[in-house]
Amino acid sequence: MKRLLLASIATLVSLTSVSAVAQFQKPEDAVKYRKAAFTVMAAHFGRIGAMAAGRAPFDAAAAASNAEIVAAMSKLPYAGFVEGTSGTDKGSPKANVWTERAKFDDEAKKLQDEVTKLAAVAKGGNLDQVKAAFGSAAATCKSCHDHFRNP
Amino acid sequence: MKRLLLASIATLVSLTSVSAVAQFQKPEDAVKYRKAAFTVMAAHFGRIGAMAAGRAPFDAAAAASNAEIVAAMSKLPYAGFVEGTSGTDKGSPKANVWTERAKFDDEAKKLQDEVTKLAAVAKGGNLDQVKAAFGSAAATCKSCHDHFRNP
Repeated sequence: MKRLLLASIATLVSLTSVSAVAQFQKPEDAVKYRKAAFTVMAAHFGRIGAMAAGRAPFDAAAAASNAEIVAAMSKLPYAGFVEGTSGTDKGSPKANVWTERAKFDDEAKKLQDEVTKLAAVAKGGNLDQVKAAFGSAAATCKSCHDHFRNP
Repeated sequence: MKRLLLASIATLVSLTSVSAVAQFQKPEDAVKYRKAAFTVMAAHFGRIGAMAAGRAPFDAAAAASNAEIVAAMSKLPYAGFVEGTSGTDKGSPKANVWTERAKFDDEAKKLQDEVTKLAAVAKGGNLDQVKAAFGSAAATCKSCHDHFRNP
């Protein structure tokens, strides 16, 4: 089963190419899509965070399931960052997403790498390791938000 | 690679248990989550639909990637149908989601089964088969929407 789960993650990681097949009729569709993908990812990430912070009892199976979903979801939202969809509202992407696209893509890659590690670690069922991996993943969120997202 | 992809789907199907680990602080969070999950699923499903309908050129690899994502996403939204979140607005769930929950769950299962078949078929790269499987999957959407969703 562990091998199967790891194979699954490997497959999902290989779906990074999905961004190449992403097609949106209108910029608003891309914005709606990326927000939705982040919403789903954040819901599952938050459940691991609650366990990591001791706000919820540690359920190893639930942590592993949630982490697998986070790893899968982390591949999706970036396709929605199409040109011309920056903003100034709270939480919207700054224009530098597009003027510093290489850095932005690198931040995305870091998140994907860290949540892939988190998913692998979570299968081990060790809370301390989950806490550490969760912290590393959360740091990639913050790093990107600090630089590219309107506070 | 095919085996890997099928293993991935098998794993994701096994994540149906995810609904059991779903936890929402507030009913609004559940509503936001399920809408988001449907939004992501619909975006990818729609891309296959465009190919099936001839509105977009058939790209076998893209169809397979999109179908894999749809199959994964189909597991998620139902956890967001928590008690007390029916509505009367266009597109919101009717109260019978909860009074006829067994039927609703059965409709969800049908969708999950059909999109899992679609994902398997899409790997074969045959447009006619993709069209047929897409049609069967789309019929499960309509069946559920007709009965449980406000028009």
